[in-house]
Amino acid sequence: MKTHLDCIPCFFRQALEAVRQADPDPAAHERLMRELLTVVRDMDLRETPPQMGQRIHRKIRELTGDVDPYRVIKGQFNRVALELYPSLVQRIEASDDPFETAVRLAIAGNSIDLAAYSGMTASAVTGIIEDASHKPITGSIDELRDAINRSGNILYLGDNAGEIVFDRLLIEQLPRERITFAVRGRPVLNDATLADAEAVGLTELVDVIDNGSDVPGTILEDCSPVFRDRFARADLIIAKGMGNYETLSGMDGAPIVFLLIAKCPIVARDLGCDLGTYVIRCGREKIQEESEDC
Amino acid sequence: MKTHLDCIPCFFRQALEAVRQADPDPAAHERLMRELLTVVRDMDLRETPPQMGQRIHRKIRELTGDVDPYRVIKGQFNRVALELYPSLVQRIEASDDPFETAVRLAIAGNSIDLAAYSGMTASAVTGIIEDASHKPITGSIDELRDAINRSGNILYLGDNAGEIVFDRLLIEQLPRERITFAVRGRPVLNDATLADAEAVGLTELVDVIDNGSDVPGTILEDCSPVFRDRFARADLIIAKGMGNYETLSGMDGAPIVFLLIAKCPIVARDLGCDLGTYVIRCGREKIQEESEDC
Repeated sequence: MKTHLDCIPCFFRQALEAVRQADPDPAAHERLMRELLTVVRDMDLRETPPQMGQRIHRKIRELTGDVDPYRVIKGQFNRVALELYPSLVQRIEASDDPFETAVRLAIAGNSIDLAAYSGMTASAVTGIIEDASHKPITGSIDELRDAINRSGNILYLGDNAGEIVFDRLLIEQLPRERITFAVRGRPVLNDATLADAEAVGLTELVDVIDNGSDVPGTILEDCSPVFRDRFARADLIIAKGMGNYETLSGMDGAPIVFLLIAKCPIVARDLGCDLGTYVIRCGREKIQEESEDC
Repeated sequence: MKTHLDCIPCFFRQALEAVRQADPDPAAHERLMRELLTVVRDMDLRETPPQMGQRIHRKIRELTGDVDPYRVIKGQFNRVALELYPSLVQRIEASDDPFETAVRLAIAGNSIDLAAYSGMTASAVTGIIEDASHKPITGSIDELRDAINRSGNILYLGDNAGEIVFDRLLIEQLPRERITFAVRGRPVLNDATLADAEAVGLTELVDVIDNGSDVPGTILEDCSPVFRDRFARADLIIAKGMGNYETLSGMDGAPIVFLLIAKCPIVARDLGCDLGTYVIRCGREKIQEESEDC
């Protein structure tokens, strides 16, 4: 998905919130904003929004000298989600359709997103879970189920810290031996890295790799050869969150299913759904050609 | 009030909405946004936000070749407000305290603001009026009443088209011979100019002057000598709206009373009130020294 002019105000809102969280010095905030004004002015709108996210967060890390300004907040979200984990496992096991419940919770977990929701707090997470059971979904859970059943290698692209506990709930409903879970290669915003996958127990459950990149999404050219190889060989790619959707939705032929909440009006418009909708969206041709039911 | 870093995303949101309203060509939208990225990068944050508004709207008029891109929308708001006018006069006359009712309606009219509210539609105006009677006000209606009673020359600074019909309701409760009503000197956003004052009948009621400037606020250095003279000689200045507050609130010694709705979080913080509050705020020293009760 290309960058829209509407993304410009949002870049500056995100950057300001991010730098304020990373550094208490107002002079640093002004310096970042002025530098970004040049960066955004010179950007190519055919690029996807997460590519600007990469630049913004590189600048923040450069200015603050902190390679991971969101370390604390990521730890917090992982802990909050882990505290909820036992009750969520019970809820899944007690439900009529554990797969559907797990899918809904995995999508609900996508609410833990500092890029889209500035007011996101740990306590808000519990409220979000209550939404999970009844929120309308655009896309078919059964088609996702069939696509998973039919696929050999499944690559699951994670999104944010905290959220990956919800991904773990879904992965526990899948044939684990066929799953590879991928995280970002380096810290960017509150996106999950290998440290987060370890912290929430994902590394004990499935094969976890990092993608070698610090884009808050998946730009293959920016990813490691190992990741690109896994991506190319995957029979099914489950891609979580807006950043992965924005960067991969234009890719013809990849067997991708996107799971996300449409948290911004531009992404919602691109998906053809209302803001806040839970989305299961199959990537174009390849899945349809191969399975004809997703 | 100086410009805050939080104003930066808002400048771009406003500019994009404004240029889309003024010109259907997406290439013009992108050109404006890229040009503004340079303008905002080089701005002095000690300037007030309406000074950036002036630059944004000059660029839009330059790009579109239209000296008044909001002509149609301003006419619309004037007409909607004029249709409501007879019933609002009745409401004021039937009320226990016609002055208070008129003040509340004048403040309510400040909702007609395309800078703060992008979704503002004509039909929304009627809803706003219903709020007028019960919204909490910060500041004292009685102190405003006393200040008016004690003042000889009163200069009333208007804000937006449509809104000035609500100002007319208040002016009809005041000693008209003492009132001068001022509008912007040239079109900018949906701010009222002389044409709007004529359209809503204000010119038949009181002396109306324009301030000679196209700032969506009041920067004295940018105003005409005639306006500056009236400003200096006024015993009381009633200044409507956020733009006038942002540009005049830092002025020591001027006998100003601001009437507005706090429509943005930064202005609300500056005023020390909640977002959406109806505000009657006396400008500092001079009024207090002279009247000691405002």
